[in-house]
Amino acid sequence: MCELLGMSCNTPTDLTFSFTGFSSRGGRTAPHGDGWGLAFFEGKASRLFLDPSPCCESPLATFFRTHPIQTELAIAHIRKRTHGPVGLANTHPFCREMWGRSWVFAHNGTLQGVEGLALDRYSPIGETDSERAFCWMLGQLLREFHTDPGPAQLFEAVARLGSELSRRGVFNFLLGNGEYLLARCDSKLHHIIRRAPFGQATLNDEDVAIDFSQVTSPGDQVAVVSTAPLTRDEAWRKGEPGQLWVFHRGALVAELESPVLHEPVVHP
Amino acid sequence: MCELLGMSCNTPTDLTFSFTGFSSRGGRTAPHGDGWGLAFFEGKASRLFLDPSPCCESPLATFFRTHPIQTELAIAHIRKRTHGPVGLANTHPFCREMWGRSWVFAHNGTLQGVEGLALDRYSPIGETDSERAFCWMLGQLLREFHTDPGPAQLFEAVARLGSELSRRGVFNFLLGNGEYLLARCDSKLHHIIRRAPFGQATLNDEDVAIDFSQVTSPGDQVAVVSTAPLTRDEAWRKGEPGQLWVFHRGALVAELESPVLHEPVVHP
Repeated sequence: MCELLGMSCNTPTDLTFSFTGFSSRGGRTAPHGDGWGLAFFEGKASRLFLDPSPCCESPLATFFRTHPIQTELAIAHIRKRTHGPVGLANTHPFCREMWGRSWVFAHNGTLQGVEGLALDRYSPIGETDSERAFCWMLGQLLREFHTDPGPAQLFEAVARLGSELSRRGVFNFLLGNGEYLLARCDSKLHHIIRRAPFGQATLNDEDVAIDFSQVTSPGDQVAVVSTAPLTRDEAWRKGEPGQLWVFHRGALVAELESPVLHEPVVHP
Repeated sequence: MCELLGMSCNTPTDLTFSFTGFSSRGGRTAPHGDGWGLAFFEGKASRLFLDPSPCCESPLATFFRTHPIQTELAIAHIRKRTHGPVGLANTHPFCREMWGRSWVFAHNGTLQGVEGLALDRYSPIGETDSERAFCWMLGQLLREFHTDPGPAQLFEAVARLGSELSRRGVFNFLLGNGEYLLARCDSKLHHIIRRAPFGQATLNDEDVAIDFSQVTSPGDQVAVVSTAPLTRDEAWRKGEPGQLWVFHRGALVAELESPVLHEPVVHP
């Protein structure tokens, strides 16, 4: 299984603290050494940093821990490969332009039989089930809505398409477009919203603690979504199967339920 | 005017030497301090590193000079803005997926009236004339060829579309798809092919010299395209207006002529 990390904020924030705990899982505290990627939005545009080598050993990952980039929306992924070899083309997050903005996607889980998904407008570059599912979802959105339909219809459609794809397997994902961060829980996803009064947090994977009250302003609000809780002393909310959370500028602005259509997966 | 740099090789090669001279032009030896970007291909996939800050001061640019990435096809750009503010969305190179592979584009020059170009499949995320022209070109290719038409038809179409866009101004560009590097000269472009016997080269913009015979194998072949020659002791070939060079694995494999349709631009 891969690891997902997403962040949505109301003021440009760096991902350093969360990414430090998260990137340990890329080959050190967990077996996810098949590449990693990080996407930062700036308005409608995003920049992706992809690295097919293990995150915990990557000089580029070290660069981001030491040169933080501030953003209001970020998506990160560490890969434990199932479909497709290790390589740049198979490294999440994936990115495509739709309706004049950048869309970024990362997946946790495995889908079967995605070759059966008919594509039109978007084609995968690599061999993963994940990228093909992403291309199918965007193609379906574009077929349904020639232009951006607005939040309510968009969220409903993404929940529905996510549910449809869950027929084929486990489909936890993060999807961001610079404005919204959509996070679908299929089998495993957590989130936390950090706002005043800020307290201390200690990473699960590293002996690193931070006192958020020292690095924030009272009005700051930051939502963090992750496969598993990143800190040991904060109250993370666990997602329910089929739940789609929508975050906007650090707030949870919508919650949709849609059925999980595969057989339940039991996590040990 | 912006600066373009492209490389095509028959063996994975790092861009460090050329990028060192090139990146000095981003705010130090030339006034191109409005952001920079670098795209590296790995097969059909690419990774882009974009930075809206001046290249010569960028920690990320320093990272690439000290942690070289090896690739068979790279495109770099340093921006001196004309249309659109400084920002990520307006930073070249631009990237889109077409026919299941990544296409990367960088432009030197300024086009007028690009709002008049009708778009369908691809839309710009930022405000530059360059990204809109790129979206229009890809849209036209996709309209003409539902799938990859093969080299000859592709090259002819790109030359024709480049000529068509040159009605609107100066259109020097680099376009890469992992396989081919297409370089159109409108007003200013140079290239060099480095192959055995390798000699020494000294950068124009920095007091840096390299003896290629020490860092290459006899069968290596590297084509470098740049707005202006990067070295002072090699024989760079100057492009003619309307010329489209096509490089494949370090070799110049095609040369097409197409008319420049704007009024000639005189370079001092």
